[in-house]
Amino acid sequence: MATPIGGRSYLFARPPVLRGWAAVGSKREGEGPLGGEFDAIEPDSTFGQKSWERAESFLHHKVLELAVAKAGLSYADLRAILAGDLLDQCTGSTFAVRELDVPYLGIYGACSTMAEGLFLAGFLTEGGMAPVAVSTASHFCTAERQYRFPLEYGGQRTPTSQWTATGGGAVVLGGEGGSGPVLLGGTAGAVEDLGIKDAANMGAAMAPAAAATLGRFFADTGTVPADYDLVVTGDLGAVGSELLYALTEREGLQLRGHHTDCGLLLYDRERQDVHAGGSGCGCCASVLCAHLLPALAAGELRRIVFAATGALLSPTSSQQGESIPGVCHAVCLAAGEEDSLWK
Amino acid sequence: MATPIGGRSYLFARPPVLRGWAAVGSKREGEGPLGGEFDAIEPDSTFGQKSWERAESFLHHKVLELAVAKAGLSYADLRAILAGDLLDQCTGSTFAVRELDVPYLGIYGACSTMAEGLFLAGFLTEGGMAPVAVSTASHFCTAERQYRFPLEYGGQRTPTSQWTATGGGAVVLGGEGGSGPVLLGGTAGAVEDLGIKDAANMGAAMAPAAAATLGRFFADTGTVPADYDLVVTGDLGAVGSELLYALTEREGLQLRGHHTDCGLLLYDRERQDVHAGGSGCGCCASVLCAHLLPALAAGELRRIVFAATGALLSPTSSQQGESIPGVCHAVCLAAGEEDSLWK
Repeated sequence: MATPIGGRSYLFARPPVLRGWAAVGSKREGEGPLGGEFDAIEPDSTFGQKSWERAESFLHHKVLELAVAKAGLSYADLRAILAGDLLDQCTGSTFAVRELDVPYLGIYGACSTMAEGLFLAGFLTEGGMAPVAVSTASHFCTAERQYRFPLEYGGQRTPTSQWTATGGGAVVLGGEGGSGPVLLGGTAGAVEDLGIKDAANMGAAMAPAAAATLGRFFADTGTVPADYDLVVTGDLGAVGSELLYALTEREGLQLRGHHTDCGLLLYDRERQDVHAGGSGCGCCASVLCAHLLPALAAGELRRIVFAATGALLSPTSSQQGESIPGVCHAVCLAAGEEDSLWK
Repeated sequence: MATPIGGRSYLFARPPVLRGWAAVGSKREGEGPLGGEFDAIEPDSTFGQKSWERAESFLHHKVLELAVAKAGLSYADLRAILAGDLLDQCTGSTFAVRELDVPYLGIYGACSTMAEGLFLAGFLTEGGMAPVAVSTASHFCTAERQYRFPLEYGGQRTPTSQWTATGGGAVVLGGEGGSGPVLLGGTAGAVEDLGIKDAANMGAAMAPAAAATLGRFFADTGTVPADYDLVVTGDLGAVGSELLYALTEREGLQLRGHHTDCGLLLYDRERQDVHAGGSGCGCCASVLCAHLLPALAAGELRRIVFAATGALLSPTSSQQGESIPGVCHAVCLAAGEEDSLWK
């Protein structure tokens, strides 16, 4: 049973072990600063498929397969897959898992999916449903088609816009045996909407949710950002990260110097044409699995807060003039149980 | 901690109490056989809003509010809302909860949403995150616009088609105190896809998932349909229910006589022009909350299996010629803990 702390945070009594994980990307991700850390880079972003949507599902399927194999398990060992993505009705995920015969619990948190999935997986695994996988992916070309303009249109991008990652991440956690980093607990966030309507400025739309959830996490746990090796959001990009600092400093929370953002880690903004940074479900999921979890496993990081943010808009809601609600879920990951602050 | 039984089913050690629930519908739902059992019927299906999408969110918000009030709680008491719907990016739900300041865990299971939410909520509440709400809604006019034809087009409907309910249901469960029916356990299902491509025949697309999950539930628990007062699916309609019998009888499972479907309960197919029956996230959710939970609370039903099915397609996947994956999650509900078969 988890221990509720503060109003909205939970610490798991038996923190599940992250037994395996994998990250898959495409050409641009491979050319980025973390390119060498991915489990697989496929330079052909069609992944040999006949549509971008099929390509995204293929990528999602592949990253799940790698994570399960790296955990030393087979699909038959999994008690559930928690997955979701940005596509309408999450078909990127449902088509990725339809051959696997593993119970499927679909989640929707936009780019917060990986953190939402880990948070829920903590309760499932501690409750006896283990091991489970959490996975998500995104694809630049499916997201452009669905949320913005057809690629063929060649639309200009504004400076605040972010680049949807063609990538995915998957984590297998829980159950007897296995070793690796652990999921100590986390904070689920409420929907925040300060009225941003610019769908090309997701960082601004999501920063209030990140500020609220992180503020809650630190208050509930009685810790400060300096207690962690890293507080990492995903994906606020350059614009959203600055807004996050402005919002949290107002509340006396000092993130600067302790914080980075997955949207700033995945690409080199000087060298790669990604404007305000990376985004998409697959951005923070692949940064987590390519970069952060290996660093925790190696002991280079001992304790991090992984706070993924989602912009909960749809093309329809934007066309109808609605503002963009945001959400952020935070989980605390450690190199081992002995790295918990709360033992 | 839940007890895993069989391969995929779980019984909760401390079954959460369903403390409050509510169902809201519109004109057609009010004219149906269960019309008198809804908490609220709003004959104007715009719900006073300027778009169908806003109407769906309004309905969703209203049903949540009623359920929380009937549970004798306020939003501040809730530790989370698990919600989802059929709209792209689940905006019906995200816009419904954006003013509430309650942690939001978005789920996507199409019309299986209510059962998926209850299954997850069982783990959350047993794990110490309680009370939580599970809610979902659908609207005929948003679903037609998104999945089929604009209403103005006046397209003909095929005999296998189902009518998306304009309705919603919400349940508040878990936590100390409170009385009511209990959630004993359940079975999460895998995605099943037998190749159905007709988006006007959802019953056929979802029946294999219902057969697989129910088969698993009965095998895992060592029970048969006759052990329950009712096995209720949602929403296979007339076509899907017959296919479910054909599929399960092949496996020696006798559902006929013990089974009904929410899509057949919500409307009068003779009197109301709904073809194969009702559908939509709000169909089985409102039937559960208007009809089944009150019967459990009154002791008219002692023990039921509620198995909600979802068709995991998108307009894009259908246009690209893909088949329709289906999923089904089953939960076991009882009038009280003493009605458990497993005590």
